Amino acid sequence: MRATLMYGAGDVRVETVPDPAIKEPTDAIVRVLRACICGSDLWPYGSMPHTEHGNRMGHEFLGVVEDLGAEVSGLRRGDLVVAPFVWADNTCDFCREGLQTSCRHGGRWGGQDLDGGQGEAVRVPQATGTLVKLPVGEDSALLPSLLTLSDVFATGHHCAVKAGVGPSTTVTVIGDGAVGLSAVLAAKRLGAERILLMGRHRQRTDLGREFGATEVVAERGEDGVARVRELTGGNGAHRVLECVGTKQAIEMAFGVVRNGGVVSRVGAPQYPEVPMDFGVFMRNITLTGGVAPARAYIEELLPDILDGKIEPGKVFDRTIGLEEVPDGYQAMADRTALKIVVKP
Amino acid sequence: MRATLMYGAGDVRVETVPDPAIKEPTDAIVRVLRACICGSDLWPYGSMPHTEHGNRMGHEFLGVVEDLGAEVSGLRRGDLVVAPFVWADNTCDFCREGLQTSCRHGGRWGGQDLDGGQGEAVRVPQATGTLVKLPVGEDSALLPSLLTLSDVFATGHHCAVKAGVGPSTTVTVIGDGAVGLSAVLAAKRLGAERILLMGRHRQRTDLGREFGATEVVAERGEDGVARVRELTGGNGAHRVLECVGTKQAIEMAFGVVRNGGVVSRVGAPQYPEVPMDFGVFMRNITLTGGVAPARAYIEELLPDILDGKIEPGKVFDRTIGLEEVPDGYQAMADRTALKIVVKP
Repeated sequence: MRATLMYGAGDVRVETVPDPAIKEPTDAIVRVLRACICGSDLWPYGSMPHTEHGNRMGHEFLGVVEDLGAEVSGLRRGDLVVAPFVWADNTCDFCREGLQTSCRHGGRWGGQDLDGGQGEAVRVPQATGTLVKLPVGEDSALLPSLLTLSDVFATGHHCAVKAGVGPSTTVTVIGDGAVGLSAVLAAKRLGAERILLMGRHRQRTDLGREFGATEVVAERGEDGVARVRELTGGNGAHRVLECVGTKQAIEMAFGVVRNGGVVSRVGAPQYPEVPMDFGVFMRNITLTGGVAPARAYIEELLPDILDGKIEPGKVFDRTIGLEEVPDGYQAMADRTALKIVVKP
Repeated sequence: MRATLMYGAGDVRVETVPDPAIKEPTDAIVRVLRACICGSDLWPYGSMPHTEHGNRMGHEFLGVVEDLGAEVSGLRRGDLVVAPFVWADNTCDFCREGLQTSCRHGGRWGGQDLDGGQGEAVRVPQATGTLVKLPVGEDSALLPSLLTLSDVFATGHHCAVKAGVGPSTTVTVIGDGAVGLSAVLAAKRLGAERILLMGRHRQRTDLGREFGATEVVAERGEDGVARVRELTGGNGAHRVLECVGTKQAIEMAFGVVRNGGVVSRVGAPQYPEVPMDFGVFMRNITLTGGVAPARAYIEELLPDILDGKIEPGKVFDRTIGLEEVPDGYQAMADRTALKIVVKP
């Protein structure tokens, strides 16, 4: 089959690789219907040292079950399923606590040992726990929104949940990328009264407004902090959703958070240390968040997508074929695309 | 009157200062019955640059109301009262949220403009909101335990509350100082099933066991982390109470916390940045805590002290007069005393 490999920064190739086959009785083989490129794929795309072997890429996909190991239950060939971006048994103590990202028998897609989502098919370990059946057909118009359950919308939701967003909260979302916009939608869904979106790409912030942002702050750094404080009577926001991952973004988060408030981060941190000094301590700020256990949220979020109450798939602004994936990476890196659907 | 001033590292003096008097109609004058020296007083005692003027010291005290401004309500002369370690109006939006440490009309004791607790009397701003009446007499044996409501036990309680300690949780407490031991007692009071105390001073950890610690870990650094992991089946503790404030202590906290868990810190951080890198992010660790709004907890904790259910005053192991305060600082710095009561 054909699949995507990254050999180093800026070096993404689509190549012929072995067809996946059942190895463990807990495996399933899924033919990929839709996959996507993640903002987090852009970090190695910008900095990965060159390798001879290449890493298989992609951790967001939905597709059709083609084959099943003997021990897989609850699934049949032909089922349309979505996979969360970390696979898990969904039965261990961590999974039962809703932390499937720390599953004792789970792991991450791609790399050198496993298939990635950006290919024609995937061998899915721990298929019973990992895959969630979707009650739609292969031609459903909901596929893009359902695809966001594998990562991007689940991540925005995780960010908002960990921050404690609820009715009558004021929220500041940092970042107008696909995760930031998903966080806006999640905060709105959870009842946030006021959502300030920090971003400066008009097309993206317009979608943010459509998703529920009540105000947009285009300024960055100290100016951005000052603007959010001005808009919140000098106080800042009780809940801050940090959806970028840079040091500047997390510094802004502590700048705009109200005393006693919560900063929730889901942007993969590109910094080793967090600036939480004595001043932050005196303000009783909490830092939470982390990699999203998407699997924990799929059943909860699915009905709202099926009912058409929310359309998180609006973050996708381009659809490409598998052979175009290298161009897709470049387009996202250049910010000419917000988030790209891959249709193998 | 006589009061304590710090002029620089290692330079604490008891001097004659002006008697306090009502300045604002919201003030009260409190004659100090008991005060104490705080672990946090030892930071400037170790590092404060020399000054000509000296800073008034002490932020923990209880005493008797001697005079009242015209606008103070709910208090009478002769009332025995305890003061939390930050004064506050207890009516602003932050106070109503239980964050009196961020009160819009509050502030800290001592320094150059206000009296400190380590003196014969204190002018108390915002007396209506700050002071809490204690239903005991001047000769009550409960005074030491009641004094801990001003800071040390309230701080341990804050640490445990922010961490989410409750029934059937496993807790690791880092530090066997007075705050760490108070955190053990608070965790026990909140129903923690298992409390691992990290400390290596036998006399202190013995009190920790009396307060509720189920295990003591004397090792530090990587060895300490390894030992806690060994005792918790490799997993670490869901709730970690960091009661020291050094970089080593917070690093240990991230080492012993279970994936998905919470580190709560009340040790005043002696570091500008927190080591919460990509690995911590992948483990979904939350960092919370901060300076304790003692005022928020006094009414809740008071009955258990009056009923004799808890005796947080056991952290005091020496009582001195006001003129001996300089020696008291040195004894605490030398660790020959755990925590000292001052009886002016």
